[in-house]
Amino acid sequence: SSESSTNDKTLPGTGRQKFETLQVLHEDNMTKIILNRPEKKNAITLLMYKEIGQALEEAGKDESTITVLTGRGDYFCSGNDLNNFASIPPEGKEKMANDAAVVLEAFVSKIIDFPKPLIAVINGPAVGISVTILGLFDIVYATDRATFHTPFSQLGQSPEGCSSYTFPRIMGLAKATEMLLFNKLVTAKTACDVGLVTEVFPDSTFQREVWTRLQAYAKLPKNSLAYSKQLIREIEKEKLHAVNIQECERLKERWLSEECMNAIISFFQSKAKL
Amino acid sequence: SSESSTNDKTLPGTGRQKFETLQVLHEDNMTKIILNRPEKKNAITLLMYKEIGQALEEAGKDESTITVLTGRGDYFCSGNDLNNFASIPPEGKEKMANDAAVVLEAFVSKIIDFPKPLIAVINGPAVGISVTILGLFDIVYATDRATFHTPFSQLGQSPEGCSSYTFPRIMGLAKATEMLLFNKLVTAKTACDVGLVTEVFPDSTFQREVWTRLQAYAKLPKNSLAYSKQLIREIEKEKLHAVNIQECERLKERWLSEECMNAIISFFQSKAKL
Amino acid sequence: SSESSTNDKTLPGTGRQKFETLQVLHEDNMTKIILNRPEKKNAITLLMYKEIGQALEEAGKDESTITVLTGRGDYFCSGNDLNNFASIPPEGKEKMANDAAVVLEAFVSKIIDFPKPLIAVINGPAVGISVTILGLFDIVYATDRATFHTPFSQLGQSPEGCSSYTFPRIMGLAKATEMLLFNKLVTAKTACDVGLVTEVFPDSTFQREVWTRLQAYAKLPKNSLAYSKQLIREIEKEKLHAVNIQECERLKERWLSEECMNAIISFFQSKAKL
Repeated sequence: SSESSTNDKTLPGTGRQKFETLQVLHEDNMTKIILNRPEKKNAITLLMYKEIGQALEEAGKDESTITVLTGRGDYFCSGNDLNNFASIPPEGKEKMANDAAVVLEAFVSKIIDFPKPLIAVINGPAVGISVTILGLFDIVYATDRATFHTPFSQLGQSPEGCSSYTFPRIMGLAKATEMLLFNKLVTAKTACDVGLVTEVFPDSTFQREVWTRLQAYAKLPKNSLAYSKQLIREIEKEKLHAVNIQECERLKERWLSEECMNAIISFFQSKAKL
Repeated sequence: SSESSTNDKTLPGTGRQKFETLQVLHEDNMTKIILNRPEKKNAITLLMYKEIGQALEEAGKDESTITVLTGRGDYFCSGNDLNNFASIPPEGKEKMANDAAVVLEAFVSKIIDFPKPLIAVINGPAVGISVTILGLFDIVYATDRATFHTPFSQLGQSPEGCSSYTFPRIMGLAKATEMLLFNKLVTAKTACDVGLVTEVFPDSTFQREVWTRLQAYAKLPKNSLAYSKQLIREIEKEKLHAVNIQECERLKERWLSEECMNAIISFFQSKAKL
Repeated sequence: SSESSTNDKTLPGTGRQKFETLQVLHEDNMTKIILNRPEKKNAITLLMYKEIGQALEEAGKDESTITVLTGRGDYFCSGNDLNNFASIPPEGKEKMANDAAVVLEAFVSKIIDFPKPLIAVINGPAVGISVTILGLFDIVYATDRATFHTPFSQLGQSPEGCSSYTFPRIMGLAKATEMLLFNKLVTAKTACDVGLVTEVFPDSTFQREVWTRLQAYAKLPKNSLAYSKQLIREIEKEKLHAVNIQECERLKERWLSEECMNAIISFFQSKAKL
């Protein structure tokens, strides 16, 4: 099956790619989920949310010991693809907002419930949802080229990915608010100092150092790792799901608000001018 | 009305000051609440607790986007004015302790429930209750001249302002205990390293840099900021109110204890000797 | 009684040592519990868990203001003595695992419930359970010679001492996981940066500086300290006991697992080869 192959870019016997927006590799007791839209800085489309969710669902059940999320190209991920809001369906914008909230909530739920060590390898700048979910990851390794930016209020929006809960607990409210409300862009070094990132590596040796370390981790007793992670997560899983639901409810309201509409129109207008 | 004026030191048409202990300004989409007893290092009297509470109540409902608390003069605030305990009312010291606890609990409640981004601009040393409430603020900017000191046990007292809950969550128990139980005075730099303070600025440029930044923040979409703050706060509001009540109960017992009485008598005796 | 003496190495009138594995001193308003198996790097036997529990029980009720745990010799503590698993009782290994879990849970419970400031003086390397319980201590002072290591997954085991709850809250999940799941050894400096340790001292002046400071702390108003500590702890005591029970349940399963059995057999084989 694709799960035991070292590269499942193609479905067995079909030649078709299994995922349009991801590459998923299985090697060294690891499942690697690679965001694979480098020409779009790995911006996450609605399809991509679903594909990441499906890839996590499968990785949670496969033979791997640890699962890694990383990006292809210069960016880790530029966040939610604003084209998700570009065309309003015939049923109206309420339908669009509802559908997007359902997709987002399901995506974050998969991360909350992930049963094995989940590791982010941040290969470049990270924006929006690709930053906020990091509070749910067990390990976050970053190149010193990475930056972390969640410009929600600039877009009339509000935090997701459980960051309204995890960020204040990781770094204290005084630092979390500057990121989540006031659009502060932080360097990898600062993100590490406040505890969002586990360790920062020089870009020149990043890939070599990180994968060497992860290969060693993936050889450790599999059940001990999974049960230890579940022990840590179980304590707040219920709370995290409640937070996820509240955040998505608020985002639905935000997406339909004038503040957000105006901000997104400005965004597309400034893009059109370029 | 006073709320739309840029300076409400006087009530409209009366020439009387609205607040005895505060100055409240409305400018640049901001409400600034300024502790205004510089000759007493902004020590908080019972009246002042009530006036800050009232100013917050009004700021929560006015047109401003963010609200800022700062101090006039060299100190941010030297804490609870011990003269609050200097004269025992005819009904006895139990009455005094009860009344003080009611005032304190109401004051802290107003901060817990504040519906917009609440920012502290720490213009100099901060002591006692003016430090402990900082765990409830969304942003804390400090001059490098500021220090943070909560000498409760020296005075036979115990922590308030929800610090028994917020400080261990911000900085870990090992650092919080040294401040809250063992009277450790920390510098602005240390307070920033442990996450109590968002950022420290050189005193020479402090006022200019901070207000420039806050003016920019106050131009962001107002509802996005308020809803995002409420999303973060809502998760633990109930817990914070419970903590506030427990802390005030304990302080009532402490204020009537021999340990506290002796410590306060010593304080006034050493003052009298000067 | 032994509790008011400055040194209770011997029971009054008997000449017998009260504890086989500890030395307990009473001086300067402090109770000092000293791990006293330096030839075994203070590895904790089943008897030693019980004796520490008993010493804490007594210290909680004695006249001291603060209680200190430290180690005799070069190590603070090398963790759980693996000889605890060396001989399987006639009732089978299930009985052994059950008994060990009961002892461990009771030991950690005593620390959760301890009613006064509890201070760790980390005189050298700390391993396993002697690290994980530190999240429950109010102050942790360490020599710069100290290291902190919790190699659970290497041994097929899982975290205890409430560390699955306290560590992510102290340092964030991204740093906690590297210690608790991936066996990362951290220096005293790093442990201090992430908030597990209160302060680090040069080894040459460690003992002098720390005891001088603790003597000053022990002169503070006793009830203020105890009530302040209880105020902080009360908020999460119930949660901590629930976590302790879950961790011990998981460890029982782990101790009987093949992963753990194989790891412990390897440990004794490699020891036998030396």
